[in-house]
Amino acid sequence: MNKVILLKKRPKGRPSLDDFEFIEQKKPNPKEGEILLKTKYVSVDPYLRGRMRDEKSYIEPFEVGKPLESGIIAEVVESNNKNFEKGEFVNGMLQWKQFQTSNGNGLNKVDNEKAPLKAYLGILGLTGITAYLGLDKIGKPKKGETLLVSGAAGAVGSVAGQIGKIKGCRVVGIAGSEEKIDRIQEKFGFDAAINYKTTDDMQKAIAEACPDGVDVYFDNVGGEILDAALANINKYGRVINCGAISLYNKTEKPTGPRVETTLIKNSILMQGFTVRDFVKDFGPAQKQLAAWMEKDKLSYLETVVEGFESIPQAFIDLFDGKNKGKMIVVV
Amino acid sequence: MNKVILLKKRPKGRPSLDDFEFIEQKKPNPKEGEILLKTKYVSVDPYLRGRMRDEKSYIEPFEVGKPLESGIIAEVVESNNKNFEKGEFVNGMLQWKQFQTSNGNGLNKVDNEKAPLKAYLGILGLTGITAYLGLDKIGKPKKGETLLVSGAAGAVGSVAGQIGKIKGCRVVGIAGSEEKIDRIQEKFGFDAAINYKTTDDMQKAIAEACPDGVDVYFDNVGGEILDAALANINKYGRVINCGAISLYNKTEKPTGPRVETTLIKNSILMQGFTVRDFVKDFGPAQKQLAAWMEKDKLSYLETVVEGFESIPQAFIDLFDGKNKGKMIVVV
Repeated sequence: MNKVILLKKRPKGRPSLDDFEFIEQKKPNPKEGEILLKTKYVSVDPYLRGRMRDEKSYIEPFEVGKPLESGIIAEVVESNNKNFEKGEFVNGMLQWKQFQTSNGNGLNKVDNEKAPLKAYLGILGLTGITAYLGLDKIGKPKKGETLLVSGAAGAVGSVAGQIGKIKGCRVVGIAGSEEKIDRIQEKFGFDAAINYKTTDDMQKAIAEACPDGVDVYFDNVGGEILDAALANINKYGRVINCGAISLYNKTEKPTGPRVETTLIKNSILMQGFTVRDFVKDFGPAQKQLAAWMEKDKLSYLETVVEGFESIPQAFIDLFDGKNKGKMIVVV
Repeated sequence: MNKVILLKKRPKGRPSLDDFEFIEQKKPNPKEGEILLKTKYVSVDPYLRGRMRDEKSYIEPFEVGKPLESGIIAEVVESNNKNFEKGEFVNGMLQWKQFQTSNGNGLNKVDNEKAPLKAYLGILGLTGITAYLGLDKIGKPKKGETLLVSGAAGAVGSVAGQIGKIKGCRVVGIAGSEEKIDRIQEKFGFDAAINYKTTDDMQKAIAEACPDGVDVYFDNVGGEILDAALANINKYGRVINCGAISLYNKTEKPTGPRVETTLIKNSILMQGFTVRDFVKDFGPAQKQLAAWMEKDKLSYLETVVEGFESIPQAFIDLFDGKNKGKMIVVV
């Protein structure tokens, strides 16, 4: 049989297990030109929360009663497609099913001899590439500048900060526990770190950690931390709006200080970043990340959870910051 | 004697005549290397309100008890500087004085045979150049796109809209009276216009006037009109944050809907624009504007007020929208 996870209903606020439904289907048979895929590693990511809303966004929302999907590494277990061989591994946006068929469109083969398969969901996958391209396309950090990163212990933030160090920046991270702020300094080499959960005045804390102000802010959280970063931003500062996890579970339209006078006064650029806008740049980005990894310039952490049944809980745990680095479910 | 206008105190909210003080000084004598300038035309602009606050910004704030300054066309009435001759006209940031001396730094000569002198404060001056470079550097409107402009009957907005038409865009303007919305359609050739003072639901009105959504928003006003524009913005939209006149007189820190999720969902760029960041591009911009003027592709309006004593009131009147196009005081 073939277990499948559906979106049962659209979450209100924080997602809960009730929002998901497990069903069993017959294991599908690949037709001519198709392959049968067995799910091996499933990426769960905060942005999936956005797709659970019934709102226009950069990708279609999930439909209630239909399977969810995310980045998945799968094994080719049967092939009726000359481009794929049994035993190969592929990476792509796939459904939360133990088995599924595909015509191969949108799938990339991954080589488990070059890097561990899981790395293709993290440091060499969309999360690493997001950090790389967010900085390359919008942040453009220069040597001697200060890069501030929120969600700094997370899969994207930890890579963004390390790239900042490679580029010669002072790098300051914001995270939500003492363990995380130790980790981003000790393991990821950030120059300073702020625990926002034990800090009353974030604006002042950022000012102290960034004595020359903030030139580039890589924002994964939005909300009040963004406000505090903008209050410390330098002339010609750049804000990469990569994520806004602090707002994803809000049920009312969130408000805050208006940004336009700050943008005008300091010639600030704020730009929403979605890695899918830059598909043509994925290859070079992955190559650069792999080269840095080989030279031991990039570290990463994963939280690996076991079992297909654990996927919804692993996703929910992201909103409590229970992951260390990239959250991956091994099936 | 020589009349001078000082900042008497920092305005609270809307500026009033009490915030300004007239004094008389002795007419200065130019030293060796200096010229004596007689003020002819004075530009008053909304951005001066920002300099009246005691806040760090792109230029130093005005000091209480010191003369104010703005863009001024002056006549050289005496010259001890070999680069300037008596009878020439210059344009520059000069003080609100009937007479002042200068060593010539930062002054540009203007030719009253090529265009009326006043044009160098408006369409060929900082306001025209602001419209041109805001679109050229940030907005980048493409043929077939929709350009929305607020403050559309004003000195900057009316030029921005006309440039949008030259570039082949659908151009929609927002202004605050029936007369203004007639003018921007009839005189400036906008495709549609919205009177925000008689419109309850700006979001809906913009949706109706921009059936294909908004690709570029040239914002001179900020506040709720910016919110309504962002609610209609297309994927990859660009917002030029050029001005925020609706907020300049606010005494409390203004709040509004948070922007970060909108920016992320639609890959939106918002960027603060200050024309002084692009001084090296002024020459080519002025040349292009002059070429369009010569081909009758650009119209402009001026409101000309007479008398040195009228400068403060002319400035205050900007906040009531009493000007038609560029507000200029002729001395």
